[in-house]
Amino acid sequence: MTIPFHGRFVPQKNKKGMVIIMKSYRKELTFNTNTRRAFLNITPHIDAALADSGIKEGLCLVNAMNITASVFINDHESGLHSDFERWLEKLAPEKPHSQYDHNGYEDNADAHLKRSVMGREVVVAVTNGKLDFGTWEQIFYGEFDGMRDKRVLVKIIGE
Amino acid sequence: MTIPFHGRFVPQKNKKGMVIIMKSYRKELTFNTNTRRAFLNITPHIDAALADSGIKEGLCLVNAMNITASVFINDHESGLHSDFERWLEKLAPEKPHSQYDHNGYEDNADAHLKRSVMGREVVVAVTNGKLDFGTWEQIFYGEFDGMRDKRVLVKIIGE
Amino acid sequence: MTIPFHGRFVPQKNKKGMVIIMKSYRKELTFNTNTRRAFLNITPHIDAALADSGIKEGLCLVNAMNITASVFINDHESGLHSDFERWLEKLAPEKPHSQYDHNGYEDNADAHLKRSVMGREVVVAVTNGKLDFGTWEQIFYGEFDGMRDKRVLVKIIGE
Repeated sequence: MTIPFHGRFVPQKNKKGMVIIMKSYRKELTFNTNTRRAFLNITPHIDAALADSGIKEGLCLVNAMNITASVFINDHESGLHSDFERWLEKLAPEKPHSQYDHNGYEDNADAHLKRSVMGREVVVAVTNGKLDFGTWEQIFYGEFDGMRDKRVLVKIIGE
Repeated sequence: MTIPFHGRFVPQKNKKGMVIIMKSYRKELTFNTNTRRAFLNITPHIDAALADSGIKEGLCLVNAMNITASVFINDHESGLHSDFERWLEKLAPEKPHSQYDHNGYEDNADAHLKRSVMGREVVVAVTNGKLDFGTWEQIFYGEFDGMRDKRVLVKIIGE
Repeated sequence: MTIPFHGRFVPQKNKKGMVIIMKSYRKELTFNTNTRRAFLNITPHIDAALADSGIKEGLCLVNAMNITASVFINDHESGLHSDFERWLEKLAPEKPHSQYDHNGYEDNADAHLKRSVMGREVVVAVTNGKLDFGTWEQIFYGEFDGMRDKRVLVKIIGE
């Protein structure tokens, strides 16, 4: 917002008389699944990062740093995760690898496609120092070519 | 941005001599469709929230708070909406419910899958106090398991 | 963040003693592909916009302004792009146009569907004045109804 400037700065104050200025925070998380595909509920990690940041109002970006993985928001329910696995295999089957052109060095074309369906990132509102979630929203890391260290980025900006 | 600090604060000023400070705004919208699936153009609601916020430059997040619904940007054209409905039913059919594992308490696995295709959220630029849209961009609420109250979150940060 | 206010403003300072204030930046890019469908690596354009903005910490939104195009992050590898093309044609075939209802003025319903799979936008963290990317992340413009000028919006907010 803009506020009047009269030679000397009269800043915006909140209810406690505190001045509001933008802040940014960054954290990397690393995951290594023991299967090629997996869904991990990473909400506790994001909650901890937000608490660590001290940010009360703003936006929290969480994205896969690897292009064969996803970060998405859905339900923490094992039946649904089985449904996701079966459905994604139907939309973009892993095998035969020969059906794909992305085979020069890798056999993970299907993982790039699956990640496109599920998405790279989520942006979550931060309100009163908490992830501003509906009742069932949880943040998941979707791994589609695992069994090695892969990173997720958390970036929070706000005040 | 950063500006020099010489003991006393000399803030950045805009053309009108106003100091620029970050602001945040939050609003919940509630929708209740009278069919299981529906697409609602919610752009007027988001325009109103933005005007209410007073924010001129920043980012506007609009997300479904429920995990069987979407917020997405596309065309306000009824033929296209029929195409979306038919296409999503082909990719992730509602019935038979028995094809899904997510059936302990609910029969809406297909809604979780459809929402994954269409996306949870949009982030829209705010420029000169307006949603910074291309010619045909409109924001839609995509309901995939309706006939009850469900919420959408609007969070705007900026100045 | 909030800081104590004691009558006179004592602003937050970074290591160089500079006060931190929010900044915003906007740029439009225009692309015209010579085929109906194409994938363009637009990362150099976004790097240049970020450098031009002078923003060091924040969020960078890149979105298609047209609803038959995508902006997404994936791998700069031609075999994978062939896989994307073939896969999207399988999920949402262009022809026959008669299979779609969105035909009053246009024959591009498939482009709206393909763009829904690939996504409208990406939000990228900005850290130390750079796009905060994993090793292989690159930003692509996905065109699904080209051979005319179409725009992409870059909006960066931060400090």
